[in-house]
Amino acid sequence: MNYIKIFAPATVANVSCGFDSLGFAIDNVGDTMTFEKTKEKGVRITAITGAELPFDVTKNAAGVVALAMLKKHPVDFGITISIHKGYAPGSGLGSSAASAGGAAFGVNALLGNPFSNLALTQFAMLGEEATCGSPIADNVSAAIYGGFVLVRSYTPLDIVSLPVPSELRLVAIHPQVEVKTKDARDVLPKEIPLKSAVTQWANVGGLISGLYSDNYELISNSLTDIIVEPVRKKLIPHFDSVKKAAIEAGALGAGISGSGPTIFALCRGNEVAKEVYKAIKETYQETGIDFHMIQSEINTQGIQILEQN
Amino acid sequence: MNYIKIFAPATVANVSCGFDSLGFAIDNVGDTMTFEKTKEKGVRITAITGAELPFDVTKNAAGVVALAMLKKHPVDFGITISIHKGYAPGSGLGSSAASAGGAAFGVNALLGNPFSNLALTQFAMLGEEATCGSPIADNVSAAIYGGFVLVRSYTPLDIVSLPVPSELRLVAIHPQVEVKTKDARDVLPKEIPLKSAVTQWANVGGLISGLYSDNYELISNSLTDIIVEPVRKKLIPHFDSVKKAAIEAGALGAGISGSGPTIFALCRGNEVAKEVYKAIKETYQETGIDFHMIQSEINTQGIQILEQN
Repeated sequence: MNYIKIFAPATVANVSCGFDSLGFAIDNVGDTMTFEKTKEKGVRITAITGAELPFDVTKNAAGVVALAMLKKHPVDFGITISIHKGYAPGSGLGSSAASAGGAAFGVNALLGNPFSNLALTQFAMLGEEATCGSPIADNVSAAIYGGFVLVRSYTPLDIVSLPVPSELRLVAIHPQVEVKTKDARDVLPKEIPLKSAVTQWANVGGLISGLYSDNYELISNSLTDIIVEPVRKKLIPHFDSVKKAAIEAGALGAGISGSGPTIFALCRGNEVAKEVYKAIKETYQETGIDFHMIQSEINTQGIQILEQN
Repeated sequence: MNYIKIFAPATVANVSCGFDSLGFAIDNVGDTMTFEKTKEKGVRITAITGAELPFDVTKNAAGVVALAMLKKHPVDFGITISIHKGYAPGSGLGSSAASAGGAAFGVNALLGNPFSNLALTQFAMLGEEATCGSPIADNVSAAIYGGFVLVRSYTPLDIVSLPVPSELRLVAIHPQVEVKTKDARDVLPKEIPLKSAVTQWANVGGLISGLYSDNYELISNSLTDIIVEPVRKKLIPHFDSVKKAAIEAGALGAGISGSGPTIFALCRGNEVAKEVYKAIKETYQETGIDFHMIQSEINTQGIQILEQN
């Protein structure tokens, strides 16, 4: 194979109770990337559209990943990468993770697929580290594995693929405001009451049980976050109104995607998702803040091959 | 029905990472109880064998439960209860929960089964409150539902039945020492680092995922507790040696049952369980402390009817 074109999905991490552990992939939002073998060795980024990102491969998430993979698996050819960002960085939908995960997948294909999904996740985490400052795994693993994922452990890295109930749908709103990663981190409590932690992990258990048993009521009841959402929602204008509108319109639950500002809602079925979409849109139209909306199935495939030769 | 004889299983609560949320029932250890209709109204305890417990129905876990049920569901007959404790109170194996859950089940049968398992759990929690000081649900729900249970929420009470992989076996050791509930509570941290909480809930997610997917490796990796075990194990003589011996003999994991002093180990299959039993036994024989050992399947039925007429 000399050439591959892929779609790398956007992802929702920190799914309510599952802060720093649970993520899932979105079906119709993401990056389109191409990877081509070249005679000249090394990695080059030849095109970036849809967002302003560095062409310097040591600073670009995709470039960092590709370099690390070629270092680990030396070959006698080079690779050029083109990136079309399908959505904005800084949205809370794992933008750097899509590029990093996409690069891991695309480069692996040109190398003849020597690496497992777990290894690809580890490479992609280097891209996260280079662009976000820490090697978080929830977005990149969701992009690579697809569906719902649980980052059970970092040492050693252990990614658990979780089932996706077939009627589960996503609605999300990306208000066009900036939430600085530093601010989102600074508001996090260093210590939390044991009692709150118990409540939270019981809900993590409930959510995962609900995913396995197609129990939408259990999923709905478990989609709560009493630890991170209460402190981070202050950084997102009108979070409470959006969540309230989503729930009243029938959403199973709603929360902050990643560290925001995107707010996600999970719904059962397309009809409910449509209503939730409408309710959130109407709520935000009154605020005067620009926004972008998403309605999607859950991506269960992970990164998809669009073309190859 | 005028008479029913039942078996109410012992239970393991606080299953490693699942402090205050996860429990399971044991197949071959528990209380045998009888319930009989009488002309004379009210509740009387006519026999208690196997342990020293109060006959006063307002102080006995089973009595408290029966009284509350008859108050909620008045009838024109009375009930006598006999209790044969199959294991010692204060073991950390849900002794009061077995009596309380058994009473809820037995009385419900004599009443014509008006109450759901969830309602029975709520009644049984009153027995826990009367004898242990707090209305905890993990042991009583495990006894009533059988198998693994997740106490997802207390307000409202939500019990989630989890699947039990068929090869899962229990080995437990009950050292004949007293762990005072107050001491076990006093050592608990009020606050914990958010980072530790994330690690813990990721393991709760992994454990539950492992139960659903029959993934013994995942169960094993998830059976860790970085929050409660490190502080409570100091109250249990030779905890570390027992855990080490169990893991080295092939156990999937080991931890404190309830608030101790019983130490449980989960194993895959009878052969491994035998080895683990032997290893733990040999370890404890050297300590000079008396102990009692258990090897059992996981009880998947909950409370069992032995006789009725």
